[in-house]
Amino acid sequence: MSVFTPVTDEALQQWLRNYAIGRPVELRGIAAGVQNSNFFVTTTLGRYVLTLFETMNRAELPFYLYLMAHLARHGLPVPAPIADLDNEYLGTLSDRPAVLVARLSGASVMDPGPQHCARVGAMLAGLHLAGRSFGRRQDNPRNAAWRAATTEQVRDYLPADERALLDAEIASESARDDSALPCGVIHADLFRDNVLWDGDCIGGVIDFYFAGVDSLLFDVAVTANDWCTEPDGRFDTQRCRALLDAYHAERPFTADECASWPAMLRSAALRFWLSRAADYHLPRDGEMVLVKPPQEYRDILRLRQGDVPPLVATTCP
Amino acid sequence: MSVFTPVTDEALQQWLRNYAIGRPVELRGIAAGVQNSNFFVTTTLGRYVLTLFETMNRAELPFYLYLMAHLARHGLPVPAPIADLDNEYLGTLSDRPAVLVARLSGASVMDPGPQHCARVGAMLAGLHLAGRSFGRRQDNPRNAAWRAATTEQVRDYLPADERALLDAEIASESARDDSALPCGVIHADLFRDNVLWDGDCIGGVIDFYFAGVDSLLFDVAVTANDWCTEPDGRFDTQRCRALLDAYHAERPFTADECASWPAMLRSAALRFWLSRAADYHLPRDGEMVLVKPPQEYRDILRLRQGDVPPLVATTCP
Repeated sequence: MSVFTPVTDEALQQWLRNYAIGRPVELRGIAAGVQNSNFFVTTTLGRYVLTLFETMNRAELPFYLYLMAHLARHGLPVPAPIADLDNEYLGTLSDRPAVLVARLSGASVMDPGPQHCARVGAMLAGLHLAGRSFGRRQDNPRNAAWRAATTEQVRDYLPADERALLDAEIASESARDDSALPCGVIHADLFRDNVLWDGDCIGGVIDFYFAGVDSLLFDVAVTANDWCTEPDGRFDTQRCRALLDAYHAERPFTADECASWPAMLRSAALRFWLSRAADYHLPRDGEMVLVKPPQEYRDILRLRQGDVPPLVATTCP
Repeated sequence: MSVFTPVTDEALQQWLRNYAIGRPVELRGIAAGVQNSNFFVTTTLGRYVLTLFETMNRAELPFYLYLMAHLARHGLPVPAPIADLDNEYLGTLSDRPAVLVARLSGASVMDPGPQHCARVGAMLAGLHLAGRSFGRRQDNPRNAAWRAATTEQVRDYLPADERALLDAEIASESARDDSALPCGVIHADLFRDNVLWDGDCIGGVIDFYFAGVDSLLFDVAVTANDWCTEPDGRFDTQRCRALLDAYHAERPFTADECASWPAMLRSAALRFWLSRAADYHLPRDGEMVLVKPPQEYRDILRLRQGDVPPLVATTCP
């Protein structure tokens, strides 16, 4: 549930005077998202989404906004931020940092088939390729350092078997050297609910507010763990193959990536187990966060300790 | 009719390797436009339009491409150029300067009502407002200097009565001082076929290749002369009022603009009479230009010598 901060029609009308997109026609809260207040805004000239940032630091927002603008410039269907008459993306509305972005068309598909996974794989590669020429840097906010720190915060709340699982994974991560893996800007949260489908085509990739710089393979692992799994967390080999092959056709995986794949799938599972465990055991005051069950990603982590489909179907490079 | 220069599937496939938008799925020539070769390009990741510039100077293209990018950044539905992996908009394909732009949705409405004219008026004002922060300058290529020069080229081909009409208008233009009128980037060719409608909303404003810096009122006059006229060239007062009032609500007209309105309507008519007369009497070798009848705008020019609806419905500022 979202829309924490109200926006009045009068405030919106006043705010839009510094934009070139006409007069407000409709303002409607969006009941989705867990970090920001979001609204559909229709004006005489178009359809937009208004976001008020509830918890994020104003200083880190330009990275996300310029990233979305950069990817949109490269022809990818991401919510391009709208510049105001002063050429600025970020403004202030209802005492919050606020931005208008383009409203994309389509709806999420929660039971994807191989054809969806192929499109998502190609799109993820497109995001990574376009991200190469993006000049700003900001670390993946849920990187290995965050995972180690968060483990310290939550481990005492967990039963012994989960603690052992966590400790083993953290030990494995810290012993690993990922420095040879291709690095760049990653979406880092490309779950099913962050892709909008317009028929069989992707009409939008949304929610870039976990993006950052990290191994590109981490992004592939996050995406595969969500898009290619059965309800019990097991991989669907056919969907997995479709996603990985489509990605590989756009940006061929390296030999180092092939070798790191099984471990990276576990790191990607760990990241979501940890954030959900932290949301569950350490709720922050005043935040209305939709707590998702941590067990789902604990189970996926356990499953990824077994066999996983290879990153590249034929011989690895 | 367009598509003068062919593009092979192989050439397109090779060219797209330097973009982040996936693999080509379809390439289809567009039978519209008179200056460039245009193609619909569908890839695994989206739908685009490819333009090869047949006659335009490469040096003047960045003005148009950065203008479209600027207006798109401000939330207006114009064809945003797509950057390649080197972050460049302009490339070379089949030995021509070439660009990919976003494909917009919608179709032209050739029999607009007042509700269409109101949207167009508001959109034109939006384009003018957003254009204020655009840093590049290039003169309107069909400005008063061009009109005077072209008159010299075509007047000897015309019958005596048309020559007299032309001479009188050029004399009137050169005696006029437009320096007090608000100036900026204008579309300069916002005819019915350059606006795409998605239901009652404008899904796209296209063809910016006559854009330049000139009086904003000239753009309003070009637009009104096309959108608000009956087949015989007479103004439809209701559509005219809808267009002008909607524009005025976004960017209020000045007193100088109110005073210059009747004369500016004649200048805007003159510009199209002249270009069509030049296309007709002075066809350029090797150019497949669809010659539109010059008489239409000669007649509009004559009609605009009579009464015209005022720029502002109530008292002028």
